[in-house]
Amino acid sequence: MKASEKLKSKIEKGLHFCVGLDPDLKKIPKHLLNSDDPILEFNKQIIEKTVEETAAYKLNFAFFESLGGRGFETLNKTVELIPSDILIIGDAKRGDIGNTSKMYAQSLFDHFKFDASTLNPYMGIDSVKPFLDYEGKLNFILALTSNSSAEDFEKLKLENGKMIFQEVIEKVKSWNTNNNCGLVFGATNLSELTENISSFDGMPILLPGIGAQGGSLEEVVKVFKSAQHSQFLINSSRAIIYADNSLNFAAEAGEVLKKYNKSVQNIEI
Amino acid sequence: MKASEKLKSKIEKGLHFCVGLDPDLKKIPKHLLNSDDPILEFNKQIIEKTVEETAAYKLNFAFFESLGGRGFETLNKTVELIPSDILIIGDAKRGDIGNTSKMYAQSLFDHFKFDASTLNPYMGIDSVKPFLDYEGKLNFILALTSNSSAEDFEKLKLENGKMIFQEVIEKVKSWNTNNNCGLVFGATNLSELTENISSFDGMPILLPGIGAQGGSLEEVVKVFKSAQHSQFLINSSRAIIYADNSLNFAAEAGEVLKKYNKSVQNIEI
Repeated sequence: MKASEKLKSKIEKGLHFCVGLDPDLKKIPKHLLNSDDPILEFNKQIIEKTVEETAAYKLNFAFFESLGGRGFETLNKTVELIPSDILIIGDAKRGDIGNTSKMYAQSLFDHFKFDASTLNPYMGIDSVKPFLDYEGKLNFILALTSNSSAEDFEKLKLENGKMIFQEVIEKVKSWNTNNNCGLVFGATNLSELTENISSFDGMPILLPGIGAQGGSLEEVVKVFKSAQHSQFLINSSRAIIYADNSLNFAAEAGEVLKKYNKSVQNIEI
Repeated sequence: MKASEKLKSKIEKGLHFCVGLDPDLKKIPKHLLNSDDPILEFNKQIIEKTVEETAAYKLNFAFFESLGGRGFETLNKTVELIPSDILIIGDAKRGDIGNTSKMYAQSLFDHFKFDASTLNPYMGIDSVKPFLDYEGKLNFILALTSNSSAEDFEKLKLENGKMIFQEVIEKVKSWNTNNNCGLVFGATNLSELTENISSFDGMPILLPGIGAQGGSLEEVVKVFKSAQHSQFLINSSRAIIYADNSLNFAAEAGEVLKKYNKSVQNIEI
């Protein structure tokens, strides 16, 4: 099943949330620390209780890599826990020269079996092409990010009148011959989202920045609904996975996600 | 010993080469494939025969990550093989939102014990700051890369008349309060190097792109010598580590490096 189809079938069911798995030993419930692999146990329980209500999972490499070799085993095992009809995003923001990028793409798609990547466009087409060559996968390329220093470069104006992130969007559209590109667009940039959504050309949009980072769920969803752009995926990490710290943490995470889904479904334009 | 001092002391001895460890199971000598950990054995022998003649080692994460959890053990063990007076660069081109970037910085500097990073500036200061907060480390930030699609964004002109990579250089200088920033500048961009070297402000420069990618060693070194900018580090991966495929491969790598060092020392302006 193609990555884009996995996403579409969830979105058709009204599911727009991506559960971000950023598992941190310092933040997971204390009772898990006695397990053989506390991070895996945490992920397993979170997945069990959110799997019916999520459109995707995003695994943030930083939180696994920081545990060394064992972390990568846990990453592997976590991917294996997720049913094959759900989109799994390997979030490592890759971008490197061609032969290195090819190794990263093989690692992400062939070895770890992710459905989708996140990519940094700074180095241009040949740094992302090895990923785009995997036809059945999805690649979310950073356009405008959710952090405040997105201003440092992404929002700078070019000689041609466009901001850098707008130039990225234009180039990504021209690279999208396999229909497997998407964009990362920070939910904290509401006015830019409103002004640029018509340029997204139907591409899937991954939106970080709701919740802990300050983006407004309601406003963002209204923009997508108004533009009739259905292919959007709202990432939420901390607000879901750390909703509760008790024995019951995973069920609570599931409840929070269910509530979020209802909110999105009830937003009217 | 501070990372910048490790580099300086090697440069004072006339050493400007960084051996890029991009170990690929498909390319290492066949006789190593019987070892318990062929990649580690390859790295070990290369290090033994190049350690007296190198200014630094750069470990490319892609080539380790693609081996899964075991690859990260090998990465760890490789770092441990390198004497503590030699700069070790962890090349993973990081750049992510603050809390994720912090995890990556901890992983690179605290867990894996690298002396230096490579960073992607696209997301701005808060995506690199957790690395810059490690005072004794060095951080090579992508300015102008060696690949041909550096044109896609890095060379675009901004409204203020500067190219994006020049804006990156200016911003990096303003971020460099801990004197631990450097730049990545592709050796394939000779005219841009000549035109911009006066803006480098003495920062250490990491130069990929010599050899397999087409940059000219002689021309590049002349530019640095003419500008009396001594803090430059030329990365060479494939031309050194895969110089030979026989039982004698490591000694050959050492010979190639020795020859390169002599070339650099003999270049006159």
